[in-house]
Amino acid sequence: MAKIAVVGGTGDLGNAIAKRLVKAGGHQVLIGSRRAEAAAEAAAALGPNVGHGVNAEVAKNCDIVIVTVPYSAQANTLKDITDSVGQAIVVDTTVPLVPPKVMRVQLPAGGSAAMEAREHLGEGVRLVTAFHNVAAHKLATDEVVDCDVLVFSDDVEARGQVVSLVGDIGMRGLAGGSLANSAAAEALTSLLIFFNRTYQADGAGVRFTGLKTAPPIG
Amino acid sequence: MAKIAVVGGTGDLGNAIAKRLVKAGGHQVLIGSRRAEAAAEAAAALGPNVGHGVNAEVAKNCDIVIVTVPYSAQANTLKDITDSVGQAIVVDTTVPLVPPKVMRVQLPAGGSAAMEAREHLGEGVRLVTAFHNVAAHKLATDEVVDCDVLVFSDDVEARGQVVSLVGDIGMRGLAGGSLANSAAAEALTSLLIFFNRTYQADGAGVRFTGLKTAPPIG
Repeated sequence: MAKIAVVGGTGDLGNAIAKRLVKAGGHQVLIGSRRAEAAAEAAAALGPNVGHGVNAEVAKNCDIVIVTVPYSAQANTLKDITDSVGQAIVVDTTVPLVPPKVMRVQLPAGGSAAMEAREHLGEGVRLVTAFHNVAAHKLATDEVVDCDVLVFSDDVEARGQVVSLVGDIGMRGLAGGSLANSAAAEALTSLLIFFNRTYQADGAGVRFTGLKTAPPIG
Repeated sequence: MAKIAVVGGTGDLGNAIAKRLVKAGGHQVLIGSRRAEAAAEAAAALGPNVGHGVNAEVAKNCDIVIVTVPYSAQANTLKDITDSVGQAIVVDTTVPLVPPKVMRVQLPAGGSAAMEAREHLGEGVRLVTAFHNVAAHKLATDEVVDCDVLVFSDDVEARGQVVSLVGDIGMRGLAGGSLANSAAAEALTSLLIFFNRTYQADGAGVRFTGLKTAPPIG
């Protein structure tokens, strides 16, 4: 039983993750937003026991804080919650897409949105990144999402907890290595968007093969 | 019927690609090496009709030149063949691994080995990148390799030809977008090496899902 806040939980990805967490049961879920009213509305739609509040508020006293905002809002959102998160695991899901060319890999000068998140949060925060490659509209359904979730962190124990959490919502989580490796998953998202157009995919996904001791698929 | 040189064709990846091309038939294959003798030896092992020579020599008058050398040899090898390749499609397979930390994504300052290849070759050369994620020891067998081959280029026609060539050797090629997107596949290789250790894979691979109009797998 973990207390999990979804910061930016009114957006497509955050809402889908929250929905799956509620459905899985066993965790206390809170929806955060910049606007308290929007958070309350989204929480009510998910069920009677879902908490809500502004981002910096829901991020307090949690075990896990999942941040699901667009790249353009990443810096401000992380700064908003830095003083709240304490020893919680912060799961940043940011993909550094640069509109309008979202099908083109354009990693930040620092190497990845993950390394930027590390800058914004400071060294003391337990930072993990994940969920870069999941199509939100598929995650919002009850169907199996044919995609692995890559999980990155320099904190091996935190990474393991998030891999396990991914399993709770019915997907396969895979440890992808250090935080710096997040660049691989972040870059992959532009390819998936390219595939959606080029190969008429309705939410292309990625699976890794040949992994003998990884959690089973589905 | 294309004339295809494999520069660095005495190495594991180059040799495996050449072996599959010879087995597929329909193409004229040449093995290049820095040392003429090594090229002759490798060519003889592949069959009586396989050409050979030093890299700059075999790269002349080809339709496709596949470059398979370690990152440390990329710059010199590409400079060696620049004056030879003319209008051939150059397929660079370089992954910018930085030993000893090969499980850590460490993309070059220019963004990718692909963008560095573009610098080395100049704007006039038809540059494609591919084969970053294939385990050479699996490609060297007759088995199905459970991995997609991502193909990148700003030259859409050249990219399509290489996607088709990948199909000739029994793998699924996927257009991954512009040359800049090569960063995604290059980064992925460090993850696959991490998976080999973490999940005891003997050559982890990657597959993309949900692609309605892509070539079928296998």
